[in-house]
Amino acid sequence: MSIRELAQHLNISIGTVSRALNGRSDVNPETRKRVFEAAAKFGYVPNQSGRSLRQGTTNAIGFMIEMNSETSLHGDTFFMSVFAGVQSVFKAHHLDLVVLLCPFDDDPYEHLRRVVSRRFVDGLFISATQRHDQRIDYLIEREIPFMALGRSLSGGSHPWIDLDFEGVATAAVDRLVARGHRRIGLVKPASELNLGYVFAEAYHAALVRHGIRPDPDLVVRADQTSEEGGYGAMGRLLALDERPSAVMLVNEIMAIGAYRRLHDAGLQAGRDVAVIGFRQSPQARFLSPTLTCFDVSLFDLGCRLATGLLATMPAYRDLYPVGLVQDIWPMTLVPGESDPPLLV
Amino acid sequence: MSIRELAQHLNISIGTVSRALNGRSDVNPETRKRVFEAAAKFGYVPNQSGRSLRQGTTNAIGFMIEMNSETSLHGDTFFMSVFAGVQSVFKAHHLDLVVLLCPFDDDPYEHLRRVVSRRFVDGLFISATQRHDQRIDYLIEREIPFMALGRSLSGGSHPWIDLDFEGVATAAVDRLVARGHRRIGLVKPASELNLGYVFAEAYHAALVRHGIRPDPDLVVRADQTSEEGGYGAMGRLLALDERPSAVMLVNEIMAIGAYRRLHDAGLQAGRDVAVIGFRQSPQARFLSPTLTCFDVSLFDLGCRLATGLLATMPAYRDLYPVGLVQDIWPMTLVPGESDPPLLV
Repeated sequence: MSIRELAQHLNISIGTVSRALNGRSDVNPETRKRVFEAAAKFGYVPNQSGRSLRQGTTNAIGFMIEMNSETSLHGDTFFMSVFAGVQSVFKAHHLDLVVLLCPFDDDPYEHLRRVVSRRFVDGLFISATQRHDQRIDYLIEREIPFMALGRSLSGGSHPWIDLDFEGVATAAVDRLVARGHRRIGLVKPASELNLGYVFAEAYHAALVRHGIRPDPDLVVRADQTSEEGGYGAMGRLLALDERPSAVMLVNEIMAIGAYRRLHDAGLQAGRDVAVIGFRQSPQARFLSPTLTCFDVSLFDLGCRLATGLLATMPAYRDLYPVGLVQDIWPMTLVPGESDPPLLV
Repeated sequence: MSIRELAQHLNISIGTVSRALNGRSDVNPETRKRVFEAAAKFGYVPNQSGRSLRQGTTNAIGFMIEMNSETSLHGDTFFMSVFAGVQSVFKAHHLDLVVLLCPFDDDPYEHLRRVVSRRFVDGLFISATQRHDQRIDYLIEREIPFMALGRSLSGGSHPWIDLDFEGVATAAVDRLVARGHRRIGLVKPASELNLGYVFAEAYHAALVRHGIRPDPDLVVRADQTSEEGGYGAMGRLLALDERPSAVMLVNEIMAIGAYRRLHDAGLQAGRDVAVIGFRQSPQARFLSPTLTCFDVSLFDLGCRLATGLLATMPAYRDLYPVGLVQDIWPMTLVPGESDPPLLV
């Protein structure tokens, strides 16, 4: 359906339809809503030639993810599900999701600047937010619609959604303490990812609340967020004079390596050292003993990310009156066999 | 570094550098090579504003993949490794890889047309090629540089790389026959994917070569390319009056479901029914008994895909004098415990 036919169907001028579709503020919200509903219903796709540079409207939204050695080798079990959720919302608006792969040896900030300069997306999702993240300041300064998957100390009033790392860390410590553990190790991710800090702080606070003095030796950083990283980190914990009776992991893939390291030391996850993983991933499902971890609906998370982004874009704002989305996304404990009560 | 500085460094005119970078045929190959080497060395990135529409040069290459229920739920363990290989080649040319996610309920042909009309990529990889694939004809007709991952009856002189489905099917039948099996089942993928046909034809030919009359009942199509699909397909094979003693799968994820179906029937993979999977995926690594399957370097495959595409693009052709790439990509048998000799 052309813009002319759309205008005829709605019995309003082509100019008004065009202004509504382009998010101009001189169209009343009710009219804009009608235009978008009809555009979605009849599958209107704007003619792109010349539009993107003239108006910044490409009908494509970018999702920037970072390649790392783990995803390059073993694939991704997180983002595809999130993408499916995002697409389910974008469908009605004929918005296409485009994944921008930042190579592992590229600087995410430079990559983002390059993407923005090409102007082929109307808005952006960014992920793997750093403790301080230049990308956020850059996007805010240029008034580019974006949504961050992950918090950061940068920014402030921008939309974000983050997994409930505090909730998971707190629930894991509470559960382990209730099962008699007091010497609880923590394996953090390799990089300056913000989630590592958030998780470690909540772990620290929960220990203190239980009257356990945190021991810095029990917090180790994995060399990489991978099976190998989990293997090495578990090795360092086992080498301590007084090894932990329980270990929490901030990434589920590391659980596979941690299990193997225990095995190689003649120990067994669950029996000799309690282990709690993070997310219930497809790979972790095959672990034996089954891993105590946390479940999350990534599809729903993707839907909410999409809604939160569209809510910041003039052309869609009125359809998604959800305000500024800054969500902590809940995760649900899935009890496994890997963290039984401590035998004394 | 600006184009002016690049020209000064090379001691040639800005106009010549510009023509070389834009793949114009009036630049001699030696000069073009020098320009590109210097551009790569000094990290020259062209100013994008206005370029893409004027010249069709965006410095972004798209890779179209299709979402399906399996990747949405369980993630992708294939493409990320391929992307890493592609990026390793693109890096020198400051080309960015952009992943175009065709939603599972969208028509791949329509999706492609939309992508092309937006003109934000200079070239394309397509995957999941169908037996007859409109996308290939469309791209050829419009003279858009592309490379297909997967063969098709469409096209002809376009570049493609495909996994060696014949080789795998043949090796699997040969191995099973050598181990005493004559009643060999085959589980094909759900859709009209070309690989299903290629695999089934090679399976058929290998049986005939061994003097075994192919039984159409032994070839079943999975409802979906997933664990569930493997579960259902194995169920249908077990329900035959005379069940197979061995089963070949054209997708490794289905192996997980096939194992479970055998287990639920009181049977065990390897002991009661021999199973050979396709690719050695990260998930399949956790199967017990270990799955006999085939290994492939996806990183190397990605490098070759990139090289083969660049070889068709005027701006890069001289740097990659590999001609028309139409490769069958080899896979290596990884013997497991799932297909022991038949006990008689």
